[in-house]
Amino acid sequence: MRRSVPLEQAYRLLNHGPTVLITTAHGQRDNLMAAAWVMPLDFSPPKVALVMDRSTYSRELLEASGELVLNIPPRALATQTLKAGSCSGKEGDKFAALGLQRLNADRVAVPLVAGCIAWLECRLLPEPRMAERYDLFLAEVVAASADDQVFTAGRWQFTDDQLRTLHHVAGGHFLSIGQPVETDTD
Amino acid sequence: MRRSVPLEQAYRLLNHGPTVLITTAHGQRDNLMAAAWVMPLDFSPPKVALVMDRSTYSRELLEASGELVLNIPPRALATQTLKAGSCSGKEGDKFAALGLQRLNADRVAVPLVAGCIAWLECRLLPEPRMAERYDLFLAEVVAASADDQVFTAGRWQFTDDQLRTLHHVAGGHFLSIGQPVETDTD
Repeated sequence: MRRSVPLEQAYRLLNHGPTVLITTAHGQRDNLMAAAWVMPLDFSPPKVALVMDRSTYSRELLEASGELVLNIPPRALATQTLKAGSCSGKEGDKFAALGLQRLNADRVAVPLVAGCIAWLECRLLPEPRMAERYDLFLAEVVAASADDQVFTAGRWQFTDDQLRTLHHVAGGHFLSIGQPVETDTD
Repeated sequence: MRRSVPLEQAYRLLNHGPTVLITTAHGQRDNLMAAAWVMPLDFSPPKVALVMDRSTYSRELLEASGELVLNIPPRALATQTLKAGSCSGKEGDKFAALGLQRLNADRVAVPLVAGCIAWLECRLLPEPRMAERYDLFLAEVVAASADDQVFTAGRWQFTDDQLRTLHHVAGGHFLSIGQPVETDTD
């Protein structure tokens, strides 16, 4: 079940480097795309940084509305995540093309992707020079939520392999996140 | 063995979101710190974005020299990576304190961390407003290399669990990267 994550814990959803599906919307139109170039930028208020190419339809929607959602897909959505990176929403409803459902977000007008395991609802910080020069966008996280099967009490708890996060290397080659690591903190 | 990685493949070393050790140097002084807030920013020439807090000694060195190295530690260095995040180089030689050795870099005067599995040698892009406002730094990757036991022909190939990348969640809790994911690309 999707449950709110306290804003000061929102960075923990991205800290280990998962690949995300970015959703955007403006007016009656929306879209989604895959992105690996996303990172936390601050703890509180939480902020994120992400790269979005100027050729994308998602960027048109993002720059028009100033809102986006970072949806974290599990391994079960690997095929859809891969395909989201290889077609354009200009050509039609990408949710329908990928067999994905929309959910209403809590604080933005952009849809969430059902079946994902965490969601960061964001509003752009106005840094047009960064967008123009580097395709880099900064945003504040205004709401966060996660599937309580895998994120509870501020921690990822991966037990079902199909719910592990995806990490894109290159060319459609993904790794899933692995096991906790023991450290010697004596 | 450490081997050069073509610059156009450098982003693949970071694309799956590993936590890194950042090394910096200025004059006779150097330091290292752990950082999870790092991402690729461009393919060619390769660029990266990273967050470095203004309270750190590493930032003094970085802003003085304009150079840094992103060293990717394997699971075998989990304890050192954790400890690197919890002490300051102001108090002494952090390499010695952590039992880590330096290697000479190819293109910068900053040392590499021996025992890591990949290295991105970087020079800062001058964006002082981003540093001042967000603690955000952008840099160009001027040389890249990786241990050919785990990165060959442009691909990570993790077979030895001790050489898997580390992914920090929060509070000293790390996950290691897992298995390749099959996708249905019909």
